[in-house]
Amino acid sequence: MSSFEDMGFCKLDTDREQRTGFPEVVFGAGKTTEQIIEIVARLIERHGRAMVTRVTSEVGAELMSHFPDAIYRDISQIFTYGTAERVFPGKVTVLSGGTSDMRVAEEAAITAEWMGCEVERIYDVGVAGIDRLLAYRENIQAANVVIVVAGMEGALVSVVGGLVRRPVIAVPTSVGYGCHFQGLTPLLAMMTSCAAGISVVNIDNGFGAGYNAAIIQQLVAEAKDR
Amino acid sequence: MSSFEDMGFCKLDTDREQRTGFPEVVFGAGKTTEQIIEIVARLIERHGRAMVTRVTSEVGAELMSHFPDAIYRDISQIFTYGTAERVFPGKVTVLSGGTSDMRVAEEAAITAEWMGCEVERIYDVGVAGIDRLLAYRENIQAANVVIVVAGMEGALVSVVGGLVRRPVIAVPTSVGYGCHFQGLTPLLAMMTSCAAGISVVNIDNGFGAGYNAAIIQQLVAEAKDR
Amino acid sequence: MSSFEDMGFCKLDTDREQRTGFPEVVFGAGKTTEQIIEIVARLIERHGRAMVTRVTSEVGAELMSHFPDAIYRDISQIFTYGTAERVFPGKVTVLSGGTSDMRVAEEAAITAEWMGCEVERIYDVGVAGIDRLLAYRENIQAANVVIVVAGMEGALVSVVGGLVRRPVIAVPTSVGYGCHFQGLTPLLAMMTSCAAGISVVNIDNGFGAGYNAAIIQQLVAEAKDR
Amino acid sequence: MSSFEDMGFCKLDTDREQRTGFPEVVFGAGKTTEQIIEIVARLIERHGRAMVTRVTSEVGAELMSHFPDAIYRDISQIFTYGTAERVFPGKVTVLSGGTSDMRVAEEAAITAEWMGCEVERIYDVGVAGIDRLLAYRENIQAANVVIVVAGMEGALVSVVGGLVRRPVIAVPTSVGYGCHFQGLTPLLAMMTSCAAGISVVNIDNGFGAGYNAAIIQQLVAEAKDR
Amino acid sequence: MSSFEDMGFCKLDTDREQRTGFPEVVFGAGKTTEQIIEIVARLIERHGRAMVTRVTSEVGAELMSHFPDAIYRDISQIFTYGTAERVFPGKVTVLSGGTSDMRVAEEAAITAEWMGCEVERIYDVGVAGIDRLLAYRENIQAANVVIVVAGMEGALVSVVGGLVRRPVIAVPTSVGYGCHFQGLTPLLAMMTSCAAGISVVNIDNGFGAGYNAAIIQQLVAEAKDR
Amino acid sequence: MSSFEDMGFCKLDTDREQRTGFPEVVFGAGKTTEQIIEIVARLIERHGRAMVTRVTSEVGAELMSHFPDAIYRDISQIFTYGTAERVFPGKVTVLSGGTSDMRVAEEAAITAEWMGCEVERIYDVGVAGIDRLLAYRENIQAANVVIVVAGMEGALVSVVGGLVRRPVIAVPTSVGYGCHFQGLTPLLAMMTSCAAGISVVNIDNGFGAGYNAAIIQQLVAEAKDR
Amino acid sequence: MSSFEDMGFCKLDTDREQRTGFPEVVFGAGKTTEQIIEIVARLIERHGRAMVTRVTSEVGAELMSHFPDAIYRDISQIFTYGTAERVFPGKVTVLSGGTSDMRVAEEAAITAEWMGCEVERIYDVGVAGIDRLLAYRENIQAANVVIVVAGMEGALVSVVGGLVRRPVIAVPTSVGYGCHFQGLTPLLAMMTSCAAGISVVNIDNGFGAGYNAAIIQQLVAEAKDR
Amino acid sequence: MSSFEDMGFCKLDTDREQRTGFPEVVFGAGKTTEQIIEIVARLIERHGRAMVTRVTSEVGAELMSHFPDAIYRDISQIFTYGTAERVFPGKVTVLSGGTSDMRVAEEAAITAEWMGCEVERIYDVGVAGIDRLLAYRENIQAANVVIVVAGMEGALVSVVGGLVRRPVIAVPTSVGYGCHFQGLTPLLAMMTSCAAGISVVNIDNGFGAGYNAAIIQQLVAEAKDR
Repeated sequence: MSSFEDMGFCKLDTDREQRTGFPEVVFGAGKTTEQIIEIVARLIERHGRAMVTRVTSEVGAELMSHFPDAIYRDISQIFTYGTAERVFPGKVTVLSGGTSDMRVAEEAAITAEWMGCEVERIYDVGVAGIDRLLAYRENIQAANVVIVVAGMEGALVSVVGGLVRRPVIAVPTSVGYGCHFQGLTPLLAMMTSCAAGISVVNIDNGFGAGYNAAIIQQLVAEAKDR
Repeated sequence: MSSFEDMGFCKLDTDREQRTGFPEVVFGAGKTTEQIIEIVARLIERHGRAMVTRVTSEVGAELMSHFPDAIYRDISQIFTYGTAERVFPGKVTVLSGGTSDMRVAEEAAITAEWMGCEVERIYDVGVAGIDRLLAYRENIQAANVVIVVAGMEGALVSVVGGLVRRPVIAVPTSVGYGCHFQGLTPLLAMMTSCAAGISVVNIDNGFGAGYNAAIIQQLVAEAKDR
Repeated sequence: MSSFEDMGFCKLDTDREQRTGFPEVVFGAGKTTEQIIEIVARLIERHGRAMVTRVTSEVGAELMSHFPDAIYRDISQIFTYGTAERVFPGKVTVLSGGTSDMRVAEEAAITAEWMGCEVERIYDVGVAGIDRLLAYRENIQAANVVIVVAGMEGALVSVVGGLVRRPVIAVPTSVGYGCHFQGLTPLLAMMTSCAAGISVVNIDNGFGAGYNAAIIQQLVAEAKDR
Repeated sequence: MSSFEDMGFCKLDTDREQRTGFPEVVFGAGKTTEQIIEIVARLIERHGRAMVTRVTSEVGAELMSHFPDAIYRDISQIFTYGTAERVFPGKVTVLSGGTSDMRVAEEAAITAEWMGCEVERIYDVGVAGIDRLLAYRENIQAANVVIVVAGMEGALVSVVGGLVRRPVIAVPTSVGYGCHFQGLTPLLAMMTSCAAGISVVNIDNGFGAGYNAAIIQQLVAEAKDR
Repeated sequence: MSSFEDMGFCKLDTDREQRTGFPEVVFGAGKTTEQIIEIVARLIERHGRAMVTRVTSEVGAELMSHFPDAIYRDISQIFTYGTAERVFPGKVTVLSGGTSDMRVAEEAAITAEWMGCEVERIYDVGVAGIDRLLAYRENIQAANVVIVVAGMEGALVSVVGGLVRRPVIAVPTSVGYGCHFQGLTPLLAMMTSCAAGISVVNIDNGFGAGYNAAIIQQLVAEAKDR
Repeated sequence: MSSFEDMGFCKLDTDREQRTGFPEVVFGAGKTTEQIIEIVARLIERHGRAMVTRVTSEVGAELMSHFPDAIYRDISQIFTYGTAERVFPGKVTVLSGGTSDMRVAEEAAITAEWMGCEVERIYDVGVAGIDRLLAYRENIQAANVVIVVAGMEGALVSVVGGLVRRPVIAVPTSVGYGCHFQGLTPLLAMMTSCAAGISVVNIDNGFGAGYNAAIIQQLVAEAKDR
Repeated sequence: MSSFEDMGFCKLDTDREQRTGFPEVVFGAGKTTEQIIEIVARLIERHGRAMVTRVTSEVGAELMSHFPDAIYRDISQIFTYGTAERVFPGKVTVLSGGTSDMRVAEEAAITAEWMGCEVERIYDVGVAGIDRLLAYRENIQAANVVIVVAGMEGALVSVVGGLVRRPVIAVPTSVGYGCHFQGLTPLLAMMTSCAAGISVVNIDNGFGAGYNAAIIQQLVAEAKDR
Repeated sequence: MSSFEDMGFCKLDTDREQRTGFPEVVFGAGKTTEQIIEIVARLIERHGRAMVTRVTSEVGAELMSHFPDAIYRDISQIFTYGTAERVFPGKVTVLSGGTSDMRVAEEAAITAEWMGCEVERIYDVGVAGIDRLLAYRENIQAANVVIVVAGMEGALVSVVGGLVRRPVIAVPTSVGYGCHFQGLTPLLAMMTSCAAGISVVNIDNGFGAGYNAAIIQQLVAEAKDR
């Protein structure tokens, strides 16, 4: 049985670090700044580190004034305090289809880094210019885990899936228009990809992709330890 | 004003050949064998040639016994009588993603051929093995029009769209399962493709793609004539 | 193998003009004004011309102050610098169903013009007044390529498709309400059109339609050259 | 308060004729032959006439052996006994887009006739050949009510809606494929039609269209009586 | 052949009154105030009357300062100038399910009135209090045409459809929340209603319902004239 | 902690009766006859009674030959063995909209009866003939719980919801056609009902409705016991 | 026959308290402050109590200045005046999955309380930390009715459904992102739950859930009275 | 550059084993028995092993007569020849929600085993009986990778996701009815899960899940080798 701490407005999963290797990460959207500050303070007290996603610039500035040693990144809208206790062997590669997918790609990259991964970024390599992508073939094949962030039709995932022997985590983004349906179209397309070795997370869920990559890397690290 | 002939159960568009360069093509599904035979006879009488799509093997056999000089192709389910009066310069290239897309790919290819196109087929070059596709890069770039037939997530279209300077006509197919939704997913994906120069026809509409390619080729031929 | 130029925030497809005949066109939405300026400057430097779509009036004004020789059009929200090197023979005709479809229709028209097409515009000829449309029958039939821009139910496409022997490129627009679903309804309707010779691009994708028309016209021109 | 008769398996709306001018019409699908026979017998006993829709050929044959004076029509799958007491002034015109829409068009036509309408049929006049339709312009404009039955994209409705000053009742049909979605696409398209004076009934609901036309004609007739 | 007048930004259907009995009605949404003023001026000049729907309060005030003899109604967002030349015999009854449906109900009522109908309004009679509705049973049964405007689940239509012998025109509204989907749910529900004699127009399309009712009433009036 | 019994192909929830008052009910669809027989035998052994839903006639006959003291009902496709240990005070009333909804209505009724409820059935009272329904107003108001089973547009639920002070459990059925979408339309309509006191179960889930009614009745009975 | 009072802009269901035990509850969204004040005044005059849901803070403040003895709660956006005449025996337990679901959970809780229920709140017990939920197992099992409010994927409902012998009323919320579709995903998931004893109300319909719970509790109370 | 072998009807990806560690796996659905035999023969010749998924019993029997040393499993519909060259350290645990999910669960399990994984199966542990699941808590937490196969609402995934520190691969199945939509509902629910560490594959795609698990295990094994 795991335990938790009742903070009134929420029940903090305090032994999550022991259970999973990482403290609970806070989803910033829909929480007041006060609530976030209170949770972050408690997390730092208990674990020495904390991370909050989907933090707007305004909230980020307020958090920074409370926790001056923390880092707030505007592009990824992530607030972090402290760093991972260990760095896992091997690298995670994050690819993105276009310039506009960067917020989500960075959310994935920063998440993985904060959790202990070495991350390589290869952005704006959409398949409409296949040679741009293929120029990075060896880099991509050298990764332990590949994260592919793509809006529009999400075709990048299928091409990458065919190039590598490692797990590919696909993140559809809401970047597109018309019958793109805020990311539903690439989500469905990635699901029905003709390539094997792909699994998919929710639209714009860069955090989820980074988290998945990190627990695979943690598994690798712990397996090597044994 | 164009004219037509009232056959009781349908109104045959008899001056369509004069208007468009091609006699009316018959959509076989949902018509009785008797109706098809009557229409085909009338088309041959008037134009010297006829084509029927979506003809099942059973109906195909019956048609062949009535019109022994015709051709019925099992794979594409197309019945044709006679040939095009001229062959257009340049070629149309038909690509398909997988083996199961062949019925639709052949519907496109046979349609274009019957209308006067030279057709090159490059099948089973889905992007999960990108090198299979790139091995044909020069062939594809040499085409006047490229037809891409793909089920699953339809990513082949985007890669091809980035390789060529010519129009790409995309045909989503109903080949897939799960959240592929009988072709809706590749249709939407093709619509939101990150590559330019692509337009899309209905799911499994190989005929439409072949027809579009042929009228582009007809335009080219007639422009050269001038 | 094509090459590209890494600009940090994006990878510019620099030999695209050699490959396709046209420099890369910039999709303005989702890019900062600074990014657009930087890309445009680089495109002008390399190709002597540049085009950006989906440029708001505010951004357009800023661009104009940087590139005083350029043109910004408010209706189509397109920024262009320089012109096509050649004008293709024959004309492209752009039809629209209603007054509100004009932004998309102009996006198609300006795109085609910038790429080298002669363009004829016939607007507000929706089928609810069929005689308005038929008054232009000969104009429409004289086009090499016809672009049909329509919101509501998109029926204009089917009527036009039946009138011409040339390719019809259909653009559904987001103009409508209720079960129009921001353009999904005309998109699906155009896809299932009873007329042949039609292919469809994404909702509001006037650029895509203009681009398709232009590469067909380029094909015609290059075929005549041979 | 209206009254009804409890037949065990159903509650027959016996004073419907007094309330609406017509006896209850039986929806044959999903009822056993025995149930239909029992209801028909009771309707004849009470009203001297009866009508059943969606009757398969097999059930139709059984009904005919029980009610030899009745009529069963294979195309429209309608069983009728007896005729209308009066014929309403003016005519109802039923248009269909294609040959395959005939079952639904006939369901509309037979329903209207059985209820007392004079019906004119103009079939296979889809808009891909607009001149076929316009050849009947005067006939259509002479109708009191126009029923338009169309599958595919249903564009016929909008063109007809623009031609007439009378109510147009639109019936989408399930005839089509791909993203036609068994009639959902023409249903939505008809709903968002750019023409005024159109209202829509359910997919394949020829009966509903015929019924609506007949009660309009009944209203006209009763208004003239007054 | 009907004729039209090219106003530059639109093509005004000038002989529409002769063809249909009513001048063209202007859909105000998506047009600039200047465009509306120009069209209204032209309509008044030609027909002596004009109507514009979907006019916001701001635009309405501007229109009133140009056309002081006109009427602008805030609730229905309709601008009218002049009145119908004749009043049709019999009445149209407009029912609404709830208080929030009033904008759409009034759009229907004002449209029908401006076109020459006598209109009775019975509002806020949703079926959750069936006795409220039944208290008006006789009024409803006395109408020539019944318009039912309902959001939520739209059940009012089915109950009314069972009460009357006259055509029922159903208007789903966007009033609701959750899986109401801005009116799609009542639209689909009205389409599949268990009652006969119902036809449906687009979500929030009060104008369409009023127009349909008016042309039925015009038919009745003209039939009586004969 | 509850316990269970591992039967190899499934894990039987053996202390469910103690936890909920009822033994586990078996969902027959998708299980082999052998599996059903084995589970039923085990349930009888442990609880002295058993119930299986969605049992086809063929499987029902096989079950009856194994358990001759059981009952198989063809209409509701339910197999039951044994009866409830107590009968709860008050009654459950099951209403259905049309004759074709009977399978689902009976599934609800038999389930509730087997679990200990007294059930009153009032079938074929769809709102298109509102007086049929209102004739039973007092019966309906006398129930402790009302189950409303309706296909088509499901409007019956809203009218009934407005008549009673007790919980109404709504069951949409797959009876309908066209844009009824196999029951999705009434499901959504019931969800957005304008009446209070309604909750909804899955399409065709008569069992779920009967079960809900029975646990409310069990609650009433146990509250009275206290 | 129930009666009502025509207030001009609405028809107040004045004998609803006699019919159902509770005065009509006002849905505040879409009504003007003036309309709400008028209705509340009339309800207080007649019943001595009133409740309005979906009241924004601004409107709430205005209402409070008119009815100083009332209560306005910011979190649940509910305005209440007066209290229930009796408190029903037993308790209703309201569970929520996450902190962001609180508005809806409180709407359910306050509604049930105002109608006479004793309510226990157990919030932020989503299944991703199952031990948090199981820590409350006995509390949950002691309830007469359980309300489960959950966004995201709504899995909490199924786990709770398996724990209790009492009715579970599920409320999907619009809390989520990506393919959550503003609550449609948990709504569908709750509908297809593998647990029995669950029924579902519309997205964010906390009021409906509270109302359902209260009428079950009223039934229990009245049954005990007998 | 990878190479391939053109077999006429398909292009076999012959250096896939070198690239990914595994020979190409054949998707049996949509291929003729002759095609499968030819491919299998070629794979065995080249790699000494082969696997085909979605093989019906009939085709399975034919394959077995050609390859007597192979294994065909009826439940998972998988044909395998030969075994993995190495067994990876650690185990993969496959959970399923219900008995009917077994085909998909076994497809995942057999795939993972054939690729070199040790697999533990824990079936029929749906969350409606949470104690059944929790009884296996330690087993589940001991896995390197967890595959969760679930139909209905798919809630099992979220509970499991909260229990483990390892990657969870979710497979929605088409087992369900009503608004389950052949697996779309659990797919969307899994995507929006409140638990972290989950990624999702297509409906019924047991193969994809097994494949993903195996390449994670391969990564672990190869990392330990280094």
